[in-house]
Amino acid sequence: MIIDCHGHYTTAPAALTEFRDAQLARLADPSLPVPATPDISDDEIRQTIEGNQLRIARERGSDLTIFSPRASHMGHHIADPATAVAWARVCNDLIYRVTTLFPENFAGACQLPQVAGEPLDACVDELDRCVRQLGFVGCNLNPDPSGGYWTSPPLTDEYWFPLYEKMTELDVPAMIHVSTSCNPAAHTLGAHYLNADTTAFMQLLQGDLFGRFPTLKFVIPHGGGAVPYHWGRFLGIATREKRPPIDSHLMNNVFFDTCVYHQPGIDLLTTVIKPGNILFASEMLGAVRGNNPDGDFPWDDTKRYLDKAPLPAADRAAIFELNTRRIYPRLDARLKSVGP
Amino acid sequence: MIIDCHGHYTTAPAALTEFRDAQLARLADPSLPVPATPDISDDEIRQTIEGNQLRIARERGSDLTIFSPRASHMGHHIADPATAVAWARVCNDLIYRVTTLFPENFAGACQLPQVAGEPLDACVDELDRCVRQLGFVGCNLNPDPSGGYWTSPPLTDEYWFPLYEKMTELDVPAMIHVSTSCNPAAHTLGAHYLNADTTAFMQLLQGDLFGRFPTLKFVIPHGGGAVPYHWGRFLGIATREKRPPIDSHLMNNVFFDTCVYHQPGIDLLTTVIKPGNILFASEMLGAVRGNNPDGDFPWDDTKRYLDKAPLPAADRAAIFELNTRRIYPRLDARLKSVGP
Repeated sequence: MIIDCHGHYTTAPAALTEFRDAQLARLADPSLPVPATPDISDDEIRQTIEGNQLRIARERGSDLTIFSPRASHMGHHIADPATAVAWARVCNDLIYRVTTLFPENFAGACQLPQVAGEPLDACVDELDRCVRQLGFVGCNLNPDPSGGYWTSPPLTDEYWFPLYEKMTELDVPAMIHVSTSCNPAAHTLGAHYLNADTTAFMQLLQGDLFGRFPTLKFVIPHGGGAVPYHWGRFLGIATREKRPPIDSHLMNNVFFDTCVYHQPGIDLLTTVIKPGNILFASEMLGAVRGNNPDGDFPWDDTKRYLDKAPLPAADRAAIFELNTRRIYPRLDARLKSVGP
Repeated sequence: MIIDCHGHYTTAPAALTEFRDAQLARLADPSLPVPATPDISDDEIRQTIEGNQLRIARERGSDLTIFSPRASHMGHHIADPATAVAWARVCNDLIYRVTTLFPENFAGACQLPQVAGEPLDACVDELDRCVRQLGFVGCNLNPDPSGGYWTSPPLTDEYWFPLYEKMTELDVPAMIHVSTSCNPAAHTLGAHYLNADTTAFMQLLQGDLFGRFPTLKFVIPHGGGAVPYHWGRFLGIATREKRPPIDSHLMNNVFFDTCVYHQPGIDLLTTVIKPGNILFASEMLGAVRGNNPDGDFPWDDTKRYLDKAPLPAADRAAIFELNTRRIYPRLDARLKSVGP
């Protein structure tokens, strides 16, 4: 089977955006009513999924997607904790409905109600709710809830530990994923996302987080940002800064997805990074839509690039399925429970 | 001949750092005297160059380095314009002395006295002085003088235009190079430098700077940050955001250096980016010192990776020499004036 570990509900019904708009309007004018839970029918969900993510997954030959709310709309820069909690719940509840309508095709990963500078209690609670009550298998963790100004401490700081304790208790990984950039210097999809991936990896290299949380697991999306392309730089910096070898220090706990949208990039990723650390993903429908003129197929059809990469069958199976089942044990348990 | 377009005086005599320390001490306590110009002899300069950059360049077989002050010490986050001007002058004057002591081996690129949020008049003046009076051939331009908080407008904003007008008038390119990160979230060498490269490229993609300044040229160092690895992503985003094709929109004006410290990275760079847009560089002695265990040679001996890359002779000559002479016309003129 083929598992795509990185999909967002970028095609959610318009009522979701209307709810968010009403939330933001109420922040500007507190005399407005608390917005009601968006009224979205099962049929609307079916349409937006069957006509988009599910159709495309079938066309491309992937079976199951780990599905989370739209990353750029998480909006953690909105500095109101109650708003963040309500927004995360609404978004996650909608993902839950996708996973119940299409249980063979989607597993949930939750949005956390992060707010820069605020404690993580609400995030811990929402993660617990999503995993225990809604059957989610992972979460998205934003290392820069300020949205491009990087005001939060590094991921190795004890600020984040309450969340790591809950992740450890529940045995769920986090994908490190920022939301929209509010900073005019950093384009959301073309700079902020990639920078966050690189920044997070380097934070982990500098620290010793996995000495304290040995079973914690992070997926760094977008092929690890700049990291694999500069793998020699990171190996060299680790030595120069007297950090342990990256392989033993980080690579039991850190994984890169395959959201790299051209053949040479995927070839580099699979050459440089061990197959056990690569998870198949496309982020379809995500940052890059439209067709690669080299062959007239979608840029984000990453399965094509992997199919062409010179990989032994065992590595291919690891990347397409087995690594993800290992990193997301709750997904693996669910798949085992429904039979072979 | 082989030209390394990216070297910094990271081995400058201790008196330079003592001058900087005295500057910063005086900012904290204005009753302290204005620090005197550092007293550095020609012999000290010779020793620090002959024992380091020049020795290594000779060992590796490169002939001439475009040399600028230490990037991480530019310290543009220090919010005092007079301090920035004095510091840039001292640093650039020292580079000038290197270029006069070793005229066949070094050409100067200047540090600009940038201060976040301040006008660029002093930068324009210092660029003019360095090029006209000291014979420099380029400059380093910091897109984030705040040092990791990204408070400046994008490089396409008119804030930067006075500098571009002077660069155009003098016909000198800028290397886009940040300085130290003051942000604990972003490691200077392992995150901030690479992020800045990616961010700058995306700013240029979003804007239309070269429509306004058609002869302006930027070198994006460190192999272009994450850009070549994610080339498909950038091509796709350009189409999706209705930008012109990257090739015609940016690639007459934007160039990547070869500071990528492993073979697969250089192979990707030379596969994805046209040879006319790649400039040989090592940033020796820079971010990554020590040896690559695959062959026991220095990580930053980028010539070795290029020598192994499957490139036609004409492309190799372009990358090692001809592109840099084209992008740095004042260097080319100087080389022509001293004969073949």
